[in-house]
Amino acid sequence: MLAVVYDGTQLQVSERSVPELRDGEALVRPTLVGICNTDLEILRGYANFSGILGHEFVGVVERCTDPAFAGQRVVGEINITCGKCDMCRIGRREHCLRRSALGIRGRDGALAEYVALPVTNLHLVPRSVPDDAAVFAEPLAAACKILEQVHVHPLSRVVVLGDGKLGLLVAQVLALTGADLIVAGRHEDKLAILSRRGIATTAGDPLYYSGADLVVECTGRAEGFHTALELVRPGGTLVLKSTYHGQIQADLSRLVVDEITVVGSRCGPFATALRYLEMGLVEVVPLIAARYRLADAAEAFHHAALPGTLKVLVHP
Amino acid sequence: MLAVVYDGTQLQVSERSVPELRDGEALVRPTLVGICNTDLEILRGYANFSGILGHEFVGVVERCTDPAFAGQRVVGEINITCGKCDMCRIGRREHCLRRSALGIRGRDGALAEYVALPVTNLHLVPRSVPDDAAVFAEPLAAACKILEQVHVHPLSRVVVLGDGKLGLLVAQVLALTGADLIVAGRHEDKLAILSRRGIATTAGDPLYYSGADLVVECTGRAEGFHTALELVRPGGTLVLKSTYHGQIQADLSRLVVDEITVVGSRCGPFATALRYLEMGLVEVVPLIAARYRLADAAEAFHHAALPGTLKVLVHP
Repeated sequence: MLAVVYDGTQLQVSERSVPELRDGEALVRPTLVGICNTDLEILRGYANFSGILGHEFVGVVERCTDPAFAGQRVVGEINITCGKCDMCRIGRREHCLRRSALGIRGRDGALAEYVALPVTNLHLVPRSVPDDAAVFAEPLAAACKILEQVHVHPLSRVVVLGDGKLGLLVAQVLALTGADLIVAGRHEDKLAILSRRGIATTAGDPLYYSGADLVVECTGRAEGFHTALELVRPGGTLVLKSTYHGQIQADLSRLVVDEITVVGSRCGPFATALRYLEMGLVEVVPLIAARYRLADAAEAFHHAALPGTLKVLVHP
Repeated sequence: MLAVVYDGTQLQVSERSVPELRDGEALVRPTLVGICNTDLEILRGYANFSGILGHEFVGVVERCTDPAFAGQRVVGEINITCGKCDMCRIGRREHCLRRSALGIRGRDGALAEYVALPVTNLHLVPRSVPDDAAVFAEPLAAACKILEQVHVHPLSRVVVLGDGKLGLLVAQVLALTGADLIVAGRHEDKLAILSRRGIATTAGDPLYYSGADLVVECTGRAEGFHTALELVRPGGTLVLKSTYHGQIQADLSRLVVDEITVVGSRCGPFATALRYLEMGLVEVVPLIAARYRLADAAEAFHHAALPGTLKVLVHP
């Protein structure tokens, strides 16, 4: 089969054998795969990964012993877990101490003609949700995670920092709470996607909105943390969604004196994301910037890496 | 009156006039004042304060228009607030945007024969709580604050890092939750104060206790943050009680990937602290290391600054 392989130094489309299934696994034929910032960071050395890339996908189950999934359209959670360690036992499988992660850590990903995944990772895609929307289930789930971690409510004053792919999803999810929300970004065209849905945005100085109860940092840049600290009120909460390379300087006394809570936030609930898509509560298709064939994956990655690019999709 | 004054370069005991009372203020005659790490940091330039030091006190109300307080034994909250700003209006007076703080920020403190404080800051001391215990109300309240911020329960695995004054108070408060608690310190004699109360302690490598649901950082050292991060489990919570000078290097991606919550924690509820003292739920008197007269305050500060010293008290 054709697959997009990163060998630790370069990316290429090459021939690989179809994955062998282990117990409890399904063979999925991806029909659409998204390129994520994490994929781009892997090409810069993040996570020290080599293998088949890709962790945002929608596809069709080709082979599976569970009749509920055979032949069905699915999306899949990316953490492959042991089910036995302390974290699995307390129900925090996404933090499994022995986990691998699809196309990120010790496990071949979905940018290929076939991908293997445990059946327990799969979620059926509702009939009314097209592939173009379902392929956003993984990053949308990451946005939904915030609502499991922080109580955001109609009296909350919220700033979302960043108008990239994740920022646009986070903004739409938080808008559903009825919070007093403003999204601070740099790109009028991206902010317009939110404005059309009635979400307040600014391309100006975000510090105008300081005193926020909650700030969600989605800029993907280290400076974002410092801006977020400027924006949050004493006693407020700062959610970090971005991962950075290396370390940053931080004034932790500021966190103590102003009693700020900082919440790290990563993978989230697929069921919630799929429900939002099915109910039309969030709009993801306007985030699609371009589409490529699997054979043109190198070009797709080049496009995705251009500053300000939204979601680039690959059709295996 | 005699007062312990820091003029920005040196500390001395000097003659000052008795404070003039503003509307709503009481004149309190401190009978016992504690020296806090914050006082020692002020002498190193922290908060850029000059004036009369001291914010941990118990005393007697000498003059007051409110008959409920006149002549009574009291302790006092240290933040003097405007009652009108956004933070006061949402009930977070301890974060008043225009606040001064007793002996720390824009307001003369309690290391003197008299101190002025708004009546609304005062709390009556229960008859059964002696001055030696009541003088701990302010730091004990800071320890109690954690229970308002984090749900600590009998299934929680908790590590308290640090066996200084604050660590010993925090440990006793958290032990009341029935949590699986271990206190990691460096001084066998201080840890023994906790062992005698049935609280588990270690002077060994704290990393043996990694995987904690909650880590409370009370070391007062920048390295404490990094140790705490090593100890907390994925999805766990790290409470910061220490303030540091300057900035530290931090790997924020670790917070995101492992979904750690970091909670800054400062001043707390006096009512809770006084109730704990009244009920004998925490023991503070063994934390007293030495006592000095006000005239010998310079010596008291010198003693308090010696490494490993617990609470030094001053009798005005």
